[in-house]
Amino acid sequence: MYHILSCDQFARDDLERIFKLTDDIRTNPERFTTSLQGKLVATVFYEPSTRTRLSFEAAVLRLGGKIISTENAKEMSSVIKGESLFDTIRVIGGYCDAIVLRHPERQSAADAASVARVPIINAGSGSGEHPTQALLDVYTVYKYKKTLDGLSIAVMGDLLFGRTVHSLVKLLALYKDVTIYGLSRDVLALPEEYVVYLEERGVRYIPCRSFEELPYDLDVLYHTRTQTERFHTDLQVEEFIIDPEVMKRFSDRTILLHPLPRRHEISPAVDTDSRAAYFAQSHNGMYVRMSLLHSIIGTSF
Amino acid sequence: MYHILSCDQFARDDLERIFKLTDDIRTNPERFTTSLQGKLVATVFYEPSTRTRLSFEAAVLRLGGKIISTENAKEMSSVIKGESLFDTIRVIGGYCDAIVLRHPERQSAADAASVARVPIINAGSGSGEHPTQALLDVYTVYKYKKTLDGLSIAVMGDLLFGRTVHSLVKLLALYKDVTIYGLSRDVLALPEEYVVYLEERGVRYIPCRSFEELPYDLDVLYHTRTQTERFHTDLQVEEFIIDPEVMKRFSDRTILLHPLPRRHEISPAVDTDSRAAYFAQSHNGMYVRMSLLHSIIGTSF
Amino acid sequence: MYHILSCDQFARDDLERIFKLTDDIRTNPERFTTSLQGKLVATVFYEPSTRTRLSFEAAVLRLGGKIISTENAKEMSSVIKGESLFDTIRVIGGYCDAIVLRHPERQSAADAASVARVPIINAGSGSGEHPTQALLDVYTVYKYKKTLDGLSIAVMGDLLFGRTVHSLVKLLALYKDVTIYGLSRDVLALPEEYVVYLEERGVRYIPCRSFEELPYDLDVLYHTRTQTERFHTDLQVEEFIIDPEVMKRFSDRTILLHPLPRRHEISPAVDTDSRAAYFAQSHNGMYVRMSLLHSIIGTSF
Repeated sequence: MYHILSCDQFARDDLERIFKLTDDIRTNPERFTTSLQGKLVATVFYEPSTRTRLSFEAAVLRLGGKIISTENAKEMSSVIKGESLFDTIRVIGGYCDAIVLRHPERQSAADAASVARVPIINAGSGSGEHPTQALLDVYTVYKYKKTLDGLSIAVMGDLLFGRTVHSLVKLLALYKDVTIYGLSRDVLALPEEYVVYLEERGVRYIPCRSFEELPYDLDVLYHTRTQTERFHTDLQVEEFIIDPEVMKRFSDRTILLHPLPRRHEISPAVDTDSRAAYFAQSHNGMYVRMSLLHSIIGTSF
Repeated sequence: MYHILSCDQFARDDLERIFKLTDDIRTNPERFTTSLQGKLVATVFYEPSTRTRLSFEAAVLRLGGKIISTENAKEMSSVIKGESLFDTIRVIGGYCDAIVLRHPERQSAADAASVARVPIINAGSGSGEHPTQALLDVYTVYKYKKTLDGLSIAVMGDLLFGRTVHSLVKLLALYKDVTIYGLSRDVLALPEEYVVYLEERGVRYIPCRSFEELPYDLDVLYHTRTQTERFHTDLQVEEFIIDPEVMKRFSDRTILLHPLPRRHEISPAVDTDSRAAYFAQSHNGMYVRMSLLHSIIGTSF
Repeated sequence: MYHILSCDQFARDDLERIFKLTDDIRTNPERFTTSLQGKLVATVFYEPSTRTRLSFEAAVLRLGGKIISTENAKEMSSVIKGESLFDTIRVIGGYCDAIVLRHPERQSAADAASVARVPIINAGSGSGEHPTQALLDVYTVYKYKKTLDGLSIAVMGDLLFGRTVHSLVKLLALYKDVTIYGLSRDVLALPEEYVVYLEERGVRYIPCRSFEELPYDLDVLYHTRTQTERFHTDLQVEEFIIDPEVMKRFSDRTILLHPLPRRHEISPAVDTDSRAAYFAQSHNGMYVRMSLLHSIIGTSF
């Protein structure tokens, strides 16, 4: 690994190495406190994503690295004056040892990587990729289930615009004997290209329109927010709400994930349910990012 | 101490411990440079208060801790997408060891503390509390006067909207034989609830309308800015101005404080008066915050 | 050196000391990693200049110092409430060991220095000075040419509003036998005050209106962006564009500089020309700033 640009760059072996290293960092954090000693990471965010930024910065600092940061890169005077992303990356790359980049355009991470003198980590490229989110999602499933082979996983909510769902199902396709249920309203169904992608890789994909169609002993229920800000019309979509009643439909071993932020789609009353794993999932993000940073620019020992 | 939420949580003993520790940190800073080693503090500001933030961040860094920071928390994409303060605090609490929170709502600090997995330090909750400001105010008086018992203190300016005055008089009420003069225009007088609060605790409170009513040998003159931004009308209030002439009314031992920022209410010509203590007061803020951070998440030795 | 306020404060000897130290830091960075240990630097930017800020922050961190930072100082609540720059600097100076200041007013750096309890480093004062940019420019020439004596240098583009050009020619005037060509459209010619300044110091200044007037064996070609944002009219000025064809007019030893950001005035096709030195120039900025910070608040050994 040099750059982290896309989910597509990971094979199953890569994921397993990342998971193992992440576990190692959680178990023995004291062994990693100087991994990035003397290293400087720039977080360059062209659109705000405070939590992703804070998670990355916490990861860098916990590994002994240092941070230079901008949350308003698109308002950088150089950008306003007409500078290209290529030049910005070349210049900032001269100050630091790695760049964590958030940018609204799909091609941005690859463009940056093409000119950077340091590794680029894609922290979200528009409606395209957000590979570290996908990695923390599968890592969370792995933590609770020990393996991803043979699991049954329902992705639900906004399967049309939900970038995290798209990346998640791609990574799930690396595993054997996976069954994916896609629970959504008709208008927010999973795009055909992902259905085809899954079928070609032998993943069972079962579209659903109600909770009744999901099995009791489901392994993972992965809910997402309806991304109304991406609707081009005034479309009103009734959301699926998960509350304690709904949780009764599922077994003790069905964990509930959500990439957060949530609005109303998961009732706060579910937070105390031992199967609610979304805050643990968010917390895992920091450790997965530590693992990636250690792999790319850390000192091995 | 675990959280710092309100002035109401402090007894006189607590203040004395804080003052003593603050003195110790100022005298022997080198003994505290690793107090927060390996600790990560998040400054989460829903409204800008750059100086309070910088003061806290300087305190964390001087104790060997690290910082993740956002000054525009209310524009965090998660917040815009409808996330509750509870969820934001849960998520950020997963990255760090303490949260310094500034939020416009009175209830925010207590709400955050109710769900946080780490200590919450209230750095200002709307028109409610700003406990670390009150602590640095009383610490400054203590530094100049050695004790707060038996002092005569005039609070002046905007006693109606001045949050710092409200917190200050509450802390002064913890001491014995204190006399407080309240110098203001009629429309900006101290609210009745605070007058009652003081009376119930045996503090003499003497409202005044002119400098003539203040004694020559006053211990402390605490001026404040008129918070015109909180007026709901076009009310014009003539401000009390402190200039070198006014300072002649007071003894050598009358110190002049102000929470800053000031506008015209203290003339710059007073800055060179040896009794002008407002920049020292501001500087004390960093040391008081070091003391609090050390108490809550520091390593004792 | 205590403050860094203006190019005018540097004699030739100072520059040579700075260059030598900068070279030393580049060659032996490991000897300087604790130079600012225990030191806290505040970057206080009243107007955004993200790259200058990141370059300074990288410099501080690489020397082992720490940073407190604000990029929106003019929106600081204290400033909005009417606080003077003097008070802001006094307060922030109480938290830190040096202040890096960017401010839109010409007089700001000197004003700040007049009250600060810590060193002030001017990171750009409006249309006035940007001394660290000028130092990195001459350092870059020195790196490529070993000396500045006897060089022929063309400054081009916007000689009227280009602050970096004005500072650069002043520093060049410290050297012997320098020839400066000023290539610009008529309306963007170098102001008369700078022409007189150069003449008084024995620098040959030759205004030009086309590439044809520049010699083949020019040492340095220093291009700048047309600062259209400073035009008070809808003036249309045809820019000089440097592309591979133009570069053929010059010798192997003619280096091409630009303070960046660029727009169209240097074609990206020139980036791979070995004479294109503008990204190296930008990178040098971090090292020059390390050198200045080390000189002012660093620990010698």
